[in-house]
Amino acid sequence: MKKITVWGFSWVPPVAQGLVRDLRVRWALEEAGLAYESRCIDTGERNSGDYRHKHPFGMVPVLESADGAMIESGAIVHAIAEQCEALMPADRRAETLGWMFTALNTVEPPLWNLFVMDVLHGEEAWVPLRRPAVVDEVNHRLAALSECLADRDYLLGRFTAADILMTTVLRFIRHTNLLARFPSLVAYVERCEARPAFDAALRNQLDGYARNEPVAA
Amino acid sequence: MKKITVWGFSWVPPVAQGLVRDLRVRWALEEAGLAYESRCIDTGERNSGDYRHKHPFGMVPVLESADGAMIESGAIVHAIAEQCEALMPADRRAETLGWMFTALNTVEPPLWNLFVMDVLHGEEAWVPLRRPAVVDEVNHRLAALSECLADRDYLLGRFTAADILMTTVLRFIRHTNLLARFPSLVAYVERCEARPAFDAALRNQLDGYARNEPVAA
Ligand SMILES: N[C@@H](CCC(=O)N[C@@H](CS)C(=O)NCC(=O)O)C(=O)O
Ligand SMILES: N[C@@H](CCC(=O)N[C@@H](CS)C(=O)NCC(=O)O)C(=O)O
Repeated sequence: MKKITVWGFSWVPPVAQGLVRDLRVRWALEEAGLAYESRCIDTGERNSGDYRHKHPFGMVPVLESADGAMIESGAIVHAIAEQCEALMPADRRAETLGWMFTALNTVEPPLWNLFVMDVLHGEEAWVPLRRPAVVDEVNHRLAALSECLADRDYLLGRFTAADILMTTVLRFIRHTNLLARFPSLVAYVERCEARPAFDAALRNQLDGYARNEPVAA
Repeated sequence: MKKITVWGFSWVPPVAQGLVRDLRVRWALEEAGLAYESRCIDTGERNSGDYRHKHPFGMVPVLESADGAMIESGAIVHAIAEQCEALMPADRRAETLGWMFTALNTVEPPLWNLFVMDVLHGEEAWVPLRRPAVVDEVNHRLAALSECLADRDYLLGRFTAADILMTTVLRFIRHTNLLARFPSLVAYVERCEARPAFDAALRNQLDGYARNEPVAA
Protein backbone atom coordinates (compact mmCIF):
# COMPACT_ATOMS: atom_id res chain seq x y z
CA MET A 1 0.00 0.00 0.00
CA LYS A 2 1.39 3.36 -1.05
CA LYS A 3 1.57 6.02 1.60
CA ILE A 4 0.59 9.51 0.46
CA THR A 5 1.51 12.66 2.37
CA VAL A 6 0.15 16.15 1.71
CA TRP A 7 2.07 19.16 3.00
CA GLY A 8 0.21 22.30 4.04
CA PHE A 9 0.67 25.14 6.53
CA SER A 10 0.24 24.45 10.24
CA TRP A 11 -1.86 27.58 10.65
CA VAL A 12 -3.00 30.59 8.64
CA PRO A 13 -5.26 33.49 9.68
CA PRO A 14 -9.03 32.96 9.29
CA VAL A 15 -9.18 35.06 6.06
CA ALA A 16 -6.95 32.48 4.37
CA GLN A 17 -8.37 29.34 5.94
CA GLY A 18 -10.11 27.24 3.31
CA LEU A 19 -8.16 28.97 0.53
CA VAL A 20 -4.67 27.50 0.90
CA ARG A 21 -3.90 25.44 -2.16
CA ASP A 22 -3.36 22.10 -0.42
CA LEU A 23 -7.19 22.05 -0.32
CA ARG A 24 -7.18 21.20 -4.04
CA VAL A 25 -4.96 18.21 -3.49
CA ARG A 26 -6.93 16.96 -0.48
CA TRP A 27 -10.16 17.28 -2.46
CA ALA A 28 -8.78 15.30 -5.41
CA LEU A 29 -7.51 12.57 -3.08
CA GLU A 30 -10.90 12.39 -1.33
CA GLU A 31 -12.70 12.13 -4.70
CA ALA A 32 -10.29 9.38 -5.75
CA GLY A 33 -10.77 7.53 -2.46
CA LEU A 34 -7.04 7.62 -1.71
CA ALA A 35 -6.01 7.72 1.94
CA TYR A 36 -3.45 10.35 2.86
CA GLU A 37 -1.62 11.80 5.78
CA SER A 38 -1.27 15.51 6.50
CA ARG A 39 2.04 17.09 7.38
CA CYS A 40 2.56 20.74 7.99
CA ILE A 41 5.18 23.42 8.21
CA ASP A 42 4.77 26.82 9.74
CA THR A 43 5.15 29.73 7.38
CA GLY A 44 8.58 30.52 8.89
CA GLU A 45 9.95 27.05 8.12
CA ARG A 46 9.05 27.18 4.47
CA ASN A 47 12.36 28.75 3.52
CA SER A 48 14.47 26.27 5.46
CA GLY A 49 16.94 24.24 3.41
CA ASP A 50 15.10 21.08 4.37
CA TYR A 51 11.77 22.22 3.05
CA ARG A 52 13.28 23.91 -0.02
CA HIS A 53 14.58 20.50 -0.89
CA LYS A 54 10.96 19.37 -1.24
CA HIS A 55 9.68 22.60 -2.81
CA PRO A 56 12.24 24.88 -4.49
CA PHE A 57 9.92 27.89 -4.13
CA GLY A 58 9.16 27.24 -0.45
CA MET A 59 5.44 26.85 -1.04
CA VAL A 60 2.65 24.46 -0.26
CA PRO A 61 1.31 22.06 -1.39
CA VAL A 62 3.81 19.26 -1.82
CA LEU A 63 2.63 15.69 -2.32
CA GLU A 64 4.92 12.85 -1.29
CA SER A 65 4.34 9.26 -2.30
CA ALA A 66 6.30 6.17 -3.28
CA ASP A 67 6.88 7.94 -6.61
CA GLY A 68 8.71 10.84 -4.95
CA ALA A 69 7.74 14.42 -4.21
CA MET A 70 5.56 16.52 -6.50
CA ILE A 71 4.89 20.26 -6.50
CA GLU A 72 2.23 22.48 -8.12
CA SER A 73 -1.38 21.95 -7.17
CA GLY A 74 -2.36 21.79 -10.87
CA ALA A 75 0.16 19.07 -11.67
CA ILE A 76 -0.60 17.10 -8.50
CA VAL A 77 -4.35 17.14 -9.13
CA HIS A 78 -3.64 16.05 -12.72
CA ALA A 79 -1.46 13.16 -11.53
CA ILE A 80 -4.22 11.98 -9.18
CA ALA A 81 -6.80 12.35 -11.96
CA GLU A 82 -4.71 10.21 -14.29
CA GLN A 83 -5.28 7.32 -11.90
CA CYS A 84 -8.97 7.97 -11.48
CA GLU A 85 -11.49 7.86 -14.30
CA ALA A 86 -13.98 9.72 -12.07
CA LEU A 87 -11.71 12.78 -12.21
CA MET A 88 -10.61 12.62 -15.85
CA PRO A 89 -12.47 10.67 -18.54
CA ALA A 90 -9.90 8.70 -20.56
CA ASP A 91 -11.29 9.98 -23.87
CA ARG A 92 -11.35 13.65 -22.80
CA ARG A 93 -7.95 14.12 -21.22
CA ALA A 94 -6.85 17.05 -23.39
CA GLU A 95 -10.11 18.86 -22.78
CA THR A 96 -9.82 18.32 -19.03
CA LEU A 97 -6.29 19.69 -19.00
CA GLY A 98 -7.46 22.65 -21.10
CA TRP A 99 -9.98 23.56 -18.42
CA MET A 100 -7.40 22.98 -15.69
CA PHE A 101 -5.11 25.55 -17.31
CA THR A 102 -8.09 27.85 -17.86
CA ALA A 103 -8.75 27.75 -14.12
CA LEU A 104 -5.15 28.37 -13.05
CA ASN A 105 -3.82 30.54 -15.87
CA THR A 106 -6.83 32.55 -17.11
CA VAL A 107 -9.33 32.79 -14.25
CA GLU A 108 -7.01 32.64 -11.24
CA PRO A 109 -4.66 35.57 -12.00
CA PRO A 110 -7.16 38.45 -11.73
CA LEU A 111 -9.12 36.79 -8.91
CA TRP A 112 -5.92 36.17 -6.98
CA ASN A 113 -4.81 39.77 -7.55
CA LEU A 114 -8.11 40.96 -6.08
CA PHE A 115 -7.71 38.69 -3.06
CA VAL A 116 -4.17 39.92 -2.52
CA MET A 117 -5.08 43.59 -2.76
CA ASP A 118 -8.22 43.44 -0.61
CA VAL A 119 -7.26 40.90 1.98
CA LEU A 120 -3.49 41.18 2.26
CA HIS A 121 -2.90 44.86 1.34
CA GLY A 122 -6.30 46.42 1.99
CA GLU A 123 -4.91 49.43 3.86
CA GLU A 124 -2.36 50.48 1.24
CA ALA A 125 -2.74 53.65 -0.81
CA TRP A 126 -2.39 51.97 -4.21
CA VAL A 127 -5.35 49.64 -3.68
CA PRO A 128 -8.23 52.09 -4.30
CA LEU A 129 -6.39 53.40 -7.37
CA ARG A 130 -5.85 49.99 -8.91
CA ARG A 131 -8.92 48.13 -7.72
CA PRO A 132 -11.56 49.23 -10.30
CA ALA A 133 -9.55 47.92 -13.26
CA VAL A 134 -8.95 44.59 -11.53
CA VAL A 135 -12.64 44.27 -10.66
CA ASP A 136 -13.37 44.91 -14.33
CA GLU A 137 -11.01 42.18 -15.38
CA VAL A 138 -12.53 39.79 -12.84
CA ASN A 139 -16.02 40.59 -14.13
CA HIS A 140 -14.98 39.88 -17.71
CA ARG A 141 -13.57 36.49 -16.81
CA LEU A 142 -16.61 35.62 -14.68
CA ALA A 143 -18.99 36.67 -17.47
CA ALA A 144 -17.23 34.43 -19.98
CA LEU A 145 -17.12 31.53 -17.55
CA SER A 146 -20.79 31.91 -16.64
CA GLU A 147 -21.72 31.64 -20.30
CA CYS A 148 -19.82 28.37 -20.49
CA LEU A 149 -21.72 27.08 -17.48
CA ALA A 150 -25.13 28.40 -18.55
CA ASP A 151 -26.17 25.10 -20.07
CA ARG A 152 -24.18 22.58 -18.10
CA ASP A 153 -23.54 21.61 -14.50
CA TYR A 154 -19.77 21.13 -14.76
CA LEU A 155 -17.04 22.37 -17.07
CA LEU A 156 -17.04 19.16 -19.10
CA GLY A 157 -20.71 18.38 -18.48
CA ARG A 158 -19.81 15.87 -15.78
CA PHE A 159 -17.60 16.53 -12.72
CA THR A 160 -13.83 16.33 -13.32
CA ALA A 161 -10.54 17.50 -11.85
CA ALA A 162 -11.03 20.80 -13.68
CA ASP A 163 -14.01 21.59 -11.43
CA ILE A 164 -11.81 21.08 -8.36
CA LEU A 165 -9.41 23.74 -9.60
CA MET A 166 -12.09 26.13 -10.85
CA THR A 167 -14.12 25.97 -7.63
CA THR A 168 -11.08 26.65 -5.45
CA VAL A 169 -10.16 29.56 -7.74
CA LEU A 170 -13.64 31.08 -7.49
CA ARG A 171 -13.36 30.87 -3.70
CA PHE A 172 -10.57 33.49 -3.82
CA ILE A 173 -13.23 36.20 -4.19
CA ARG A 174 -15.55 34.94 -1.47
CA HIS A 175 -14.80 38.20 0.41
CA THR A 176 -16.66 40.15 -2.34
CA ASN A 177 -20.16 39.91 -3.78
CA LEU A 178 -18.91 39.80 -7.38
CA LEU A 179 -20.05 36.23 -7.99
CA ALA A 180 -23.66 37.13 -7.13
CA ARG A 181 -24.13 38.83 -10.52
CA PHE A 182 -23.71 35.41 -12.13
CA PRO A 183 -26.33 32.98 -10.77
CA SER A 184 -24.95 30.12 -12.85
CA LEU A 185 -21.58 30.54 -11.13
CA VAL A 186 -23.10 30.74 -7.67
CA ALA A 187 -25.00 27.54 -8.39
CA TYR A 188 -21.88 25.92 -9.82
CA VAL A 189 -19.77 26.63 -6.73
CA GLU A 190 -22.57 25.42 -4.46
CA ARG A 191 -22.94 22.25 -6.50
CA CYS A 192 -19.23 21.48 -6.32
CA GLU A 193 -18.89 22.39 -2.67
CA ALA A 194 -21.85 20.15 -1.82
CA ARG A 195 -19.78 17.10 -2.71
CA PRO A 196 -18.87 14.94 0.30
CA ALA A 197 -15.24 14.87 -0.88
CA PHE A 198 -15.03 18.67 -0.74
CA ASP A 199 -16.46 18.69 2.73
CA ALA A 200 -14.01 16.04 3.95
CA ALA A 201 -11.07 17.90 2.41
CA LEU A 202 -12.10 21.22 3.91
CA ARG A 203 -12.65 19.69 7.34
CA ASN A 204 -9.22 18.09 7.19
CA GLN A 205 -7.60 21.40 6.38
CA LEU A 206 -9.53 23.39 8.99
CA ASP A 207 -9.10 20.78 11.73
CA GLY A 208 -5.35 21.11 11.30
CA TYR A 209 -5.52 24.87 11.78
CA ALA A 210 -7.76 24.45 14.83
CA ARG A 211 -5.22 22.11 16.44
CA ASN A 212 -2.42 24.59 15.78
CA GLU A 213 -4.29 27.77 16.72
CA PRO A 214 -1.70 30.12 18.23
CA VAL A 215 -2.40 30.94 21.88
CA ALA A 216 -2.93 34.67 22.43
CA ALA A 217 0.17 36.18 24.03
CA MET B 1 -2.18 14.82 -43.37
CA LYS B 2 -3.65 16.81 -40.52
CA LYS B 3 -3.90 20.54 -40.97
CA ILE B 4 -2.96 22.60 -37.94
CA THR B 5 -3.96 26.26 -37.53
CA VAL B 6 -2.64 28.62 -34.87
CA TRP B 7 -4.62 31.76 -34.05
CA GLY B 8 -2.81 34.92 -32.95
CA PHE B 9 -3.33 38.67 -33.18
CA SER B 10 -2.91 40.41 -36.53
CA TRP B 11 -0.85 43.17 -34.94
CA VAL B 12 0.25 44.33 -31.50
CA PRO B 13 2.46 47.30 -30.54
CA PRO B 14 6.23 46.68 -30.52
CA VAL B 15 6.37 46.38 -26.69
CA ALA B 16 4.20 43.28 -26.95
CA GLN B 17 5.66 41.77 -30.11
CA GLY B 18 7.44 38.53 -29.29
CA LEU B 19 5.48 38.17 -26.05
CA VAL B 20 2.02 37.18 -27.26
CA ARG B 21 1.29 33.67 -26.09
CA ASP B 22 0.79 32.08 -29.50
CA LEU B 23 4.62 32.16 -29.60
CA ARG B 24 4.65 29.21 -27.18
CA VAL B 25 2.46 27.16 -29.45
CA ARG B 26 4.43 28.04 -32.58
CA TRP B 27 7.67 27.12 -30.80
CA ALA B 28 6.34 23.73 -29.70
CA LEU B 29 5.09 22.99 -33.21
CA GLU B 30 8.47 23.96 -34.68
CA GLU B 31 10.30 21.72 -32.19
CA ALA B 32 7.94 18.86 -33.04
CA GLY B 33 8.43 19.43 -36.77
CA LEU B 34 4.71 19.89 -37.36
CA ALA B 35 3.66 22.20 -40.16
CA TYR B 36 1.05 24.80 -39.30
CA GLU B 37 -0.83 27.70 -40.74
CA SER B 38 -1.24 31.07 -39.06
CA ARG B 39 -4.57 32.81 -38.78
CA CYS B 40 -5.16 36.07 -37.03
CA ILE B 41 -7.82 38.29 -35.57
CA ASP B 42 -7.46 41.90 -34.69
CA THR B 43 -7.87 42.76 -31.06
CA GLY B 44 -11.31 44.26 -31.80
CA GLU B 45 -12.63 41.02 -33.30
CA ARG B 46 -11.71 38.91 -30.33
CA ASN B 47 -15.04 39.52 -28.64
CA SER B 48 -17.13 38.71 -31.70
CA GLY B 49 -19.55 35.82 -31.33
CA ASP B 50 -17.69 33.93 -34.01
CA TYR B 51 -14.36 34.06 -32.26
CA ARG B 52 -15.88 33.51 -28.80
CA HIS B 53 -17.13 30.25 -30.21
CA LYS B 54 -13.48 29.23 -30.63
CA HIS B 55 -12.25 30.82 -27.39
CA PRO B 56 -14.84 31.54 -24.67
CA PHE B 57 -12.56 34.19 -23.10
CA GLY B 58 -11.82 35.93 -26.41
CA MET B 59 -8.09 35.32 -26.17
CA VAL B 60 -5.26 33.96 -28.24
CA PRO B 61 -3.88 31.39 -28.82
CA VAL B 62 -6.33 28.87 -30.20
CA LEU B 63 -5.09 25.76 -31.97
CA GLU B 64 -7.34 24.11 -34.54
CA SER B 65 -6.70 20.66 -35.94
CA ALA B 66 -8.61 17.59 -37.06
CA ASP B 67 -9.21 16.93 -33.34
CA GLY B 68 -11.09 20.21 -32.90
CA ALA B 69 -10.17 23.52 -31.29
CA MET B 70 -8.02 23.80 -28.17
CA ILE B 71 -7.40 26.78 -25.88
CA GLU B 72 -4.78 27.58 -23.22
CA SER B 73 -1.16 27.79 -24.28
CA GLY B 74 -0.16 25.42 -21.45
CA ALA B 75 -2.63 22.74 -22.50
CA ILE B 76 -1.85 23.14 -26.19
CA VAL B 77 1.90 22.84 -25.65
CA HIS B 78 1.22 19.77 -23.49
CA ALA B 79 -0.91 18.18 -26.21
CA ILE B 80 1.84 18.74 -28.77
CA ALA B 81 4.43 17.36 -26.34
CA GLU B 82 2.39 14.21 -25.82
CA GLN B 83 2.99 13.39 -29.46
CA CYS B 84 6.66 14.24 -29.38
CA GLU B 85 9.21 12.44 -27.20
CA ALA B 86 11.65 15.31 -27.81
CA LEU B 87 9.34 17.61 -25.84
CA MET B 88 8.26 15.25 -23.07
CA PRO B 89 10.16 12.09 -22.13
CA ALA B 90 7.62 9.26 -21.73
CA ASP B 91 9.00 8.28 -18.34
CA ARG B 92 9.01 11.82 -16.95
CA ARG B 93 5.60 13.11 -17.91
CA ALA B 94 4.47 14.09 -14.42
CA GLU B 95 7.70 15.95 -13.79
CA THR B 96 7.40 17.80 -17.07
CA LEU B 97 3.84 18.86 -16.28
CA GLY B 98 4.99 19.92 -12.80
CA TRP B 99 7.48 22.33 -14.36
CA MET B 100 4.88 23.50 -16.87
CA PHE B 101 2.57 24.51 -14.04
CA THR B 102 5.52 26.04 -12.18
CA ALA B 103 6.16 28.25 -15.19
CA LEU B 104 2.54 29.34 -15.68
CA ASN B 105 1.19 29.31 -12.14
CA THR B 106 4.17 30.19 -9.91
CA VAL B 107 6.66 32.16 -12.00
CA GLU B 108 4.33 33.85 -14.49
CA PRO B 109 1.94 35.66 -12.11
CA PRO B 110 4.40 38.15 -10.56
CA LEU B 111 6.37 38.60 -13.81
CA TRP B 112 3.17 39.24 -15.72
CA ASN B 113 2.01 41.72 -13.06
CA LEU B 114 5.28 43.59 -13.49
CA PHE B 115 4.90 43.65 -17.26
CA VAL B 116 1.33 44.91 -16.96
CA MET B 117 2.20 47.67 -14.52
CA ASP B 118 5.34 48.90 -16.29
CA VAL B 119 4.40 48.47 -19.90
CA LEU B 120 0.62 48.81 -19.98
CA HIS B 121 -0.02 51.16 -17.01
CA GLY B 122 3.36 52.86 -16.54
CA GLU B 123 1.90 56.34 -16.20
CA GLU B 124 -0.63 55.54 -13.50
CA ALA B 125 -0.28 56.79 -9.93
CA TRP B 126 -0.59 53.38 -8.26
CA VAL B 127 2.39 51.91 -10.09
CA PRO B 128 5.24 53.51 -8.09
CA LEU B 129 3.41 52.63 -4.86
CA ARG B 130 2.91 48.98 -5.73
CA ARG B 131 6.01 48.28 -7.79
CA PRO B 132 8.63 47.61 -5.07
CA ALA B 133 6.65 44.74 -3.55
CA VAL B 134 6.10 43.16 -6.94
CA VAL B 135 9.79 43.49 -7.81
CA ASP B 136 10.53 41.76 -4.50
CA GLU B 137 8.22 38.92 -5.36
CA VAL B 138 9.76 38.61 -8.83
CA ASN B 139 13.23 38.50 -7.30
CA HIS B 140 12.22 35.73 -4.91
CA ARG B 141 10.87 33.59 -7.70
CA LEU B 142 13.91 34.25 -9.89
CA ALA B 143 16.28 33.41 -7.04
CA ALA B 144 14.56 30.07 -6.43
CA LEU B 145 14.49 29.27 -10.12
CA SER B 146 18.15 30.18 -10.60
CA GLU B 147 19.10 27.74 -7.85
CA CYS B 148 17.25 25.01 -9.71
CA LEU B 149 19.16 25.86 -12.87
CA ALA B 150 22.54 26.30 -11.21
CA ASP B 151 23.66 22.76 -12.01
CA ARG B 152 21.69 21.96 -15.13
CA ASP B 153 21.04 23.38 -18.57
CA TYR B 154 17.29 22.79 -18.70
CA LEU B 155 14.53 22.31 -16.11
CA LEU B 156 14.60 18.53 -16.48
CA GLY B 157 18.28 18.36 -17.42
CA ARG B 158 17.39 18.02 -21.09
CA PHE B 159 15.18 20.37 -23.12
CA THR B 160 11.41 19.79 -22.79
CA ALA B 161 8.08 21.54 -23.25
CA ALA B 162 8.55 23.05 -19.78
CA ASP B 163 11.49 25.11 -21.08
CA ILE B 164 9.29 26.55 -23.81
CA LEU B 165 6.85 27.84 -21.22
CA MET B 166 9.52 29.01 -18.76
CA THR B 167 11.52 30.89 -21.40
CA THR B 168 8.46 32.72 -22.71
CA VAL B 169 7.51 33.60 -19.14
CA LEU B 170 10.96 35.02 -18.38
CA ARG B 171 10.67 37.17 -21.51
CA PHE B 172 7.84 39.12 -19.83
CA ILE B 173 10.45 41.08 -17.85
CA ARG B 174 12.78 41.78 -20.78
CA HIS B 175 11.99 45.50 -20.28
CA THR B 176 13.82 45.38 -16.90
CA ASN B 177 17.32 44.36 -15.87
CA LEU B 178 16.10 42.06 -13.10
CA LEU B 179 17.31 38.88 -14.80
CA ALA B 180 20.90 40.16 -14.91
CA ARG B 181 21.35 39.45 -11.19
CA PHE B 182 21.00 35.75 -12.00
CA PRO B 183 23.63 34.70 -14.55
CA SER B 184 22.32 31.14 -14.66
CA LEU B 185 18.93 32.48 -15.78
CA VAL B 186 20.43 34.77 -18.39
CA ALA B 187 22.38 31.83 -19.78
CA TYR B 188 19.29 29.63 -19.66
CA VAL B 189 17.16 32.05 -21.66
CA GLU B 190 19.96 32.52 -24.19
CA ARG B 191 20.39 28.77 -24.51
CA CYS B 192 16.70 28.21 -25.14
CA GLU B 193 16.33 31.17 -27.48
CA ALA B 194 19.30 29.94 -29.51
CA ARG B 195 17.29 26.96 -30.68
CA PRO B 196 16.39 27.10 -34.38
CA ALA B 197 12.78 26.26 -33.52
CA PHE B 198 12.51 29.34 -31.31
CA ASP B 199 13.92 31.50 -34.04
CA ALA B 200 11.51 30.11 -36.62
CA ALA B 201 8.54 30.60 -34.28
CA LEU B 202 9.51 34.17 -33.44
CA ARG B 203 10.08 35.04 -37.09
CA ASN B 204 6.66 33.65 -37.95
CA GLN B 205 5.00 35.74 -35.30
CA LEU B 206 6.89 38.94 -36.13
CA ASP B 207 6.47 38.54 -39.90
CA GLY B 208 2.73 38.49 -39.40
CA TYR B 209 2.85 41.76 -37.48
CA ALA B 210 5.07 43.33 -40.13
CA ARG B 211 2.55 42.42 -42.83
CA ASN B 212 -0.27 43.95 -40.81
CA GLU B 213 1.56 47.06 -39.61
CA PRO B 214 -1.07 49.81 -39.38
CA VAL B 215 -0.40 52.71 -41.75
CA ALA B 216 0.07 55.99 -39.94
CA ALA B 217 -3.03 58.14 -40.34
N1 LIG C 1 1.31 27.48 -8.32
C1 LIG C 1 1.49 26.98 -6.99
C2 LIG C 1 1.28 28.11 -6.01
C3 LIG C 1 1.43 27.67 -4.59
C4 LIG C 1 1.17 28.81 -3.63
O1 LIG C 1 1.05 29.97 -4.01
N2 LIG C 1 1.09 28.44 -2.36
C5 LIG C 1 0.91 29.43 -1.31
C6 LIG C 1 -0.17 28.98 -0.36
S1 LIG C 1 -1.75 28.86 -1.16
C7 LIG C 1 2.20 29.53 -0.55
O2 LIG C 1 2.83 28.54 -0.23
N3 LIG C 1 2.65 30.76 -0.26
C8 LIG C 1 3.85 31.02 0.46
C9 LIG C 1 4.82 31.83 -0.34
O3 LIG C 1 4.42 32.36 -1.40
O4 LIG C 1 5.96 31.94 0.10
C10 LIG C 1 0.52 25.83 -6.72
O5 LIG C 1 -0.61 25.94 -7.21
O6 LIG C 1 0.91 24.84 -6.09
N1 LIG D 1 -3.92 31.45 -20.00
C1 LIG D 1 -4.12 31.85 -21.37
C2 LIG D 1 -3.91 33.34 -21.45
C3 LIG D 1 -4.07 33.86 -22.85
C4 LIG D 1 -3.84 35.36 -22.92
O1 LIG D 1 -3.72 36.05 -21.89
N2 LIG D 1 -3.74 35.86 -24.15
C5 LIG D 1 -3.58 37.28 -24.37
C6 LIG D 1 -2.49 37.52 -25.40
S1 LIG D 1 -0.91 36.96 -24.82
C7 LIG D 1 -4.90 37.80 -24.92
O2 LIG D 1 -5.49 37.19 -25.78
N3 LIG D 1 -5.35 38.94 -24.40
C8 LIG D 1 -6.56 39.55 -24.82
C9 LIG D 1 -7.54 39.69 -23.71
O3 LIG D 1 -7.17 39.47 -22.53
O4 LIG D 1 -8.71 40.02 -23.96
C10 LIG D 1 -3.13 31.12 -22.26
O5 LIG D 1 -1.98 30.94 -21.81
O6 LIG D 1 -3.48 30.72 -23.38
